Amino acid sequence: MIIVLRPGATQADVDHIVERAQKLGLKPHISKGTQRTIIGLIGPEDALRAIPLEVFPGVENVIPVLAPYRLVSREFKKEDSEIAISANVTVGGKKITVIAGPCAIESEERLLEIGEKAKAAGATVLRGGAFKPRTSPYDFQGLGEKGLEILKRVSAQLGMPTVTEVMDPRDVGLVARCADILQIGARNMQNFNLLKEVGQTKKPILLKRGMSATIKEWLMSAEYILAEGNHNVILCERGIRTFETATRNTFDISAIPVVKHLAHLPIIADPSHAAGKYSYVPALAKAAVAAGCDGLIIETHTRPEEAASDGAQSLLPEKLTELLRELKTIAAAVGREL
Amino acid sequence: MIIVLRPGATQADVDHIVERAQKLGLKPHISKGTQRTIIGLIGPEDALRAIPLEVFPGVENVIPVLAPYRLVSREFKKEDSEIAISANVTVGGKKITVIAGPCAIESEERLLEIGEKAKAAGATVLRGGAFKPRTSPYDFQGLGEKGLEILKRVSAQLGMPTVTEVMDPRDVGLVARCADILQIGARNMQNFNLLKEVGQTKKPILLKRGMSATIKEWLMSAEYILAEGNHNVILCERGIRTFETATRNTFDISAIPVVKHLAHLPIIADPSHAAGKYSYVPALAKAAVAAGCDGLIIETHTRPEEAASDGAQSLLPEKLTELLRELKTIAAAVGREL
Amino acid sequence: MIIVLRPGATQADVDHIVERAQKLGLKPHISKGTQRTIIGLIGPEDALRAIPLEVFPGVENVIPVLAPYRLVSREFKKEDSEIAISANVTVGGKKITVIAGPCAIESEERLLEIGEKAKAAGATVLRGGAFKPRTSPYDFQGLGEKGLEILKRVSAQLGMPTVTEVMDPRDVGLVARCADILQIGARNMQNFNLLKEVGQTKKPILLKRGMSATIKEWLMSAEYILAEGNHNVILCERGIRTFETATRNTFDISAIPVVKHLAHLPIIADPSHAAGKYSYVPALAKAAVAAGCDGLIIETHTRPEEAASDGAQSLLPEKLTELLRELKTIAAAVGREL
Amino acid sequence: MIIVLRPGATQADVDHIVERAQKLGLKPHISKGTQRTIIGLIGPEDALRAIPLEVFPGVENVIPVLAPYRLVSREFKKEDSEIAISANVTVGGKKITVIAGPCAIESEERLLEIGEKAKAAGATVLRGGAFKPRTSPYDFQGLGEKGLEILKRVSAQLGMPTVTEVMDPRDVGLVARCADILQIGARNMQNFNLLKEVGQTKKPILLKRGMSATIKEWLMSAEYILAEGNHNVILCERGIRTFETATRNTFDISAIPVVKHLAHLPIIADPSHAAGKYSYVPALAKAAVAAGCDGLIIETHTRPEEAASDGAQSLLPEKLTELLRELKTIAAAVGREL
Repeated sequence: MIIVLRPGATQADVDHIVERAQKLGLKPHISKGTQRTIIGLIGPEDALRAIPLEVFPGVENVIPVLAPYRLVSREFKKEDSEIAISANVTVGGKKITVIAGPCAIESEERLLEIGEKAKAAGATVLRGGAFKPRTSPYDFQGLGEKGLEILKRVSAQLGMPTVTEVMDPRDVGLVARCADILQIGARNMQNFNLLKEVGQTKKPILLKRGMSATIKEWLMSAEYILAEGNHNVILCERGIRTFETATRNTFDISAIPVVKHLAHLPIIADPSHAAGKYSYVPALAKAAVAAGCDGLIIETHTRPEEAASDGAQSLLPEKLTELLRELKTIAAAVGREL
Repeated sequence: MIIVLRPGATQADVDHIVERAQKLGLKPHISKGTQRTIIGLIGPEDALRAIPLEVFPGVENVIPVLAPYRLVSREFKKEDSEIAISANVTVGGKKITVIAGPCAIESEERLLEIGEKAKAAGATVLRGGAFKPRTSPYDFQGLGEKGLEILKRVSAQLGMPTVTEVMDPRDVGLVARCADILQIGARNMQNFNLLKEVGQTKKPILLKRGMSATIKEWLMSAEYILAEGNHNVILCERGIRTFETATRNTFDISAIPVVKHLAHLPIIADPSHAAGKYSYVPALAKAAVAAGCDGLIIETHTRPEEAASDGAQSLLPEKLTELLRELKTIAAAVGREL
Repeated sequence: MIIVLRPGATQADVDHIVERAQKLGLKPHISKGTQRTIIGLIGPEDALRAIPLEVFPGVENVIPVLAPYRLVSREFKKEDSEIAISANVTVGGKKITVIAGPCAIESEERLLEIGEKAKAAGATVLRGGAFKPRTSPYDFQGLGEKGLEILKRVSAQLGMPTVTEVMDPRDVGLVARCADILQIGARNMQNFNLLKEVGQTKKPILLKRGMSATIKEWLMSAEYILAEGNHNVILCERGIRTFETATRNTFDISAIPVVKHLAHLPIIADPSHAAGKYSYVPALAKAAVAAGCDGLIIETHTRPEEAASDGAQSLLPEKLTELLRELKTIAAAVGREL
Repeated sequence: MIIVLRPGATQADVDHIVERAQKLGLKPHISKGTQRTIIGLIGPEDALRAIPLEVFPGVENVIPVLAPYRLVSREFKKEDSEIAISANVTVGGKKITVIAGPCAIESEERLLEIGEKAKAAGATVLRGGAFKPRTSPYDFQGLGEKGLEILKRVSAQLGMPTVTEVMDPRDVGLVARCADILQIGARNMQNFNLLKEVGQTKKPILLKRGMSATIKEWLMSAEYILAEGNHNVILCERGIRTFETATRNTFDISAIPVVKHLAHLPIIADPSHAAGKYSYVPALAKAAVAAGCDGLIIETHTRPEEAASDGAQSLLPEKLTELLRELKTIAAAVGREL
């Protein structure tokens, strides 16, 4: 922690800060410049974060030095984490994992139809929402528990592990019994009680980045889950909110190398929610693989005109098949497989 | 709903859309321009929102015409809503309500000390957090149930109604028993299950705007609560996330006249979270009153250096007293009282 | 400047940085913490900004301590600057200056008609654009030199000083002869050659904040003008670009207290461009005065339906009159006059 | 253009709009819904944009239907445009063009040294700034005319065409004589007089996207150049400003497919300015090629520690060589060459 003092700060101001810091077991380093005095505090920043140093007399600015996350950081663990999903599927290794399926589970027949096509195209994990967070209370909210049962049966039938969103801490047990990966949606990235709840399971967690979350905040949300004992976290970039309206969200492709630099957790990309339009999905998917992502989650539907939610961003199975074929060569070009 | 077709759209494309719209009970109006054909669909847009018209052949763009909210809109209710908090306190009438208190409840003595000063300064509602949403799992998370009990006792002692945050649907009953207003924090603005849960109480709800929520999305979140039967919603502007870092958030002062135009619900302002620095709080508070807000929620602390959370943005009681005095004349200048 | 080293940085890395810093006449302070080594460099940061310290081996992060502006800062000049516009008009003193007029100069008759009404309402400076920066090359681009002559004649007739935009360094001399204040528009805030050119005049400059400029960058642009010898700079907040679309821009009301804290230059507000809709202008104007602005620039038109540009955000003269009456009491409430 | 009326709009309001529209040669279509009346106006929207329909009585909202650009649009020209730079270099064809070189021209020796390495690595165009737009007036502003002469000599020596920024309309002639491509920087994207000036040359123009420009505004700026008769415009995505600070800008990878969909102009990517850190440049460059860009502009320096500007984001020649090798296979995977 570095404390920059105002030009007129007094020796008493310095002493007051030093005294408080020493009580917390920190070692102060004082540098008096021509224009400013600066106090560097050596030691655990957590202790300091609890004190509002900004209100101490004479203080102009407080600059943290250490990243606030630990368990997720590269410093804590140097090697890339690999998260086992099922006997055959892992996220974070050489192989890029493709998750596909409809936005919402609409019926058993439809999910099976889509899942079969997705599997044939090369996807190894099936997605499908039973609890849908919708901006409007009047829009389709998902089939709920019934949807989860469908998901479980289709998963067994196809031999594909599954991912589905959990929105409520009260549903964590139920969802954990029906799906292989629990998804925390963008709107719940800072629903800390939900994070703590899924942190107490041993399930792989797919943690989507919040719409306006910095990468640092996103990693802190992952830290919540790891801090509860569950280290099986997969990060998912799905676009952030900016002024641009040509796409639904602005896909932050840079998040991939930045996360890889800062953390050991795998990161996958959701080009469908980022684009909001199916025609832009292939370009974003290719970009994500080229940039080094560990997987993709792609909305697919056999009859987009009848999709209960997000039909506009769903790929037809034949488009998915074509895309995955192209992705194979890009994956190879960056030393990966798909 | 207006559907703009691509230049090359065929008559078959038009017929396909018209047929689908008619099945839903909508009346299509077709306008063929020199460059584009446009189809206007007259009737309830909700039915249409369920269909991904963007994927229909020939469609370039789909433009909704009606606002997606109903119960919160000025069209549903022309007059300003007034929300009764206690025998003496109402939000939304001529009188501007001042809510003050610490960010987090730290101890009974401290809350009482701050509450007394806040009351003396002119605040009529006491704030204090028992459940604190913190970016880091290692930061103080609030006193929880114990904090709620403190809040209840101090409230009784001072004769001030209270507001406190609820973060988890499982805590709604508990919080509703201990506080007069339930606050939904910015991070939970789209925690739809929590919204539904508080919608089933009769308690006044303080709904903070999400960090990156449009005004439309914010009103849709309010709609969730009203749709469950609870019309006692108070909106709270607390700043949005932008590229500017000189303040913690960018206080969107325009939200006040915009919300007043679109909705009948009262809107209050939180200058403390917007500014992030106590020295900017008075200017923002004055601006909010001048712009027509119905209340203010201001963080106050008697010993900011010891505050467990957000000390940097807390006003000392003497500053609060001074501010409320200045606000009185501004309130009068815009035909209000404080 | 503070340099944070990576965990694995070597003594050679430290020596390399120290050696380079000493050559530049800077004094290094080294603090070795448990997790990180930090080097504080004492001395003029300008010298350091020229070196890309981020690429030096072992460096993780470089944190500047001093603000990069000097002449505009409060440290350079403690008292508020007052900019004299004409014999009777000053910006930055106790009196809040009201600038009003049409977006674009359309004809002499119309400008005179609007100017008279604006003056009667209480405005003391007349605005009107002769060079209009328009997003589309097919939109009205202003009357140019002919417009400037109209402005000069109307100014003389009404006895009101004027402000108009200059977009091209080649036009600075011409505009300086015809108007009293030269406006640098938001799109040109970082047109550095234009800034240098107006910096070489002695004219008051109205420097609008760029659409996505931080306050720091805005002050740096002002610094360009002051560095050329022209200290007559008036800053103008006109809204920034964010994700919110309910208003044309997001009026950053916090910029007023922040600028007042950091710089000695006067700051005025442009509620018309921020709002984009006339009905929201009064609320924003009141907020700006309450927050401490030194002036307002308000678009006014007698026949908005016929305005060549930005009619939607123009106030009718009667609305302006009413607004200025209300603003008088708010100004008084914050110790100002209008 | 679609005009949505307020619930209480009268027949007189409708007539007033219809009359005005008909005078402009537009054909109105009126649709009366249960909640709203909508007027569709068929005909050239340009005529309409000049009228502030929003202020007409009874109007709630005005929705444009047509894109405001013409010459740059896919509807105007179906096939991809190819811009010839020199006898051997074209932008927009099958081959992906690599532009490399230092941010600023520092000396003839250094530019030659860097240019040779860049050429050896596979770059075919040399970049180097002589006029540098710097946030601070105290930072290195470029060698100016002397720099341009260096650029010209090094270009001749290496047989590489060049690109350099022009910031001032007065310098367009000079820069056009010394360089092969004129760059309009992000800060000048809406410097309309500069756009008009370069529009009057026949030179290829590299038009960088403004920091907070929507894709639509960017295309409108290109339209300014084409409207003056110069159709040789190359667009360049270089990152937009968002709340995220982990990278210097947020690289909007989606802009590539979106621009390809809307316009016929080539689009290249600038991963260096987007990332701001050299270590993130390769991932972004790969992503851009995979997403379909027509070229890359990459900052390269042989001695980043001594770079006069932007050293932190410059690649060493050996890193550039390695990157271009990897890009070759990605280019092949998406049907391109490099």
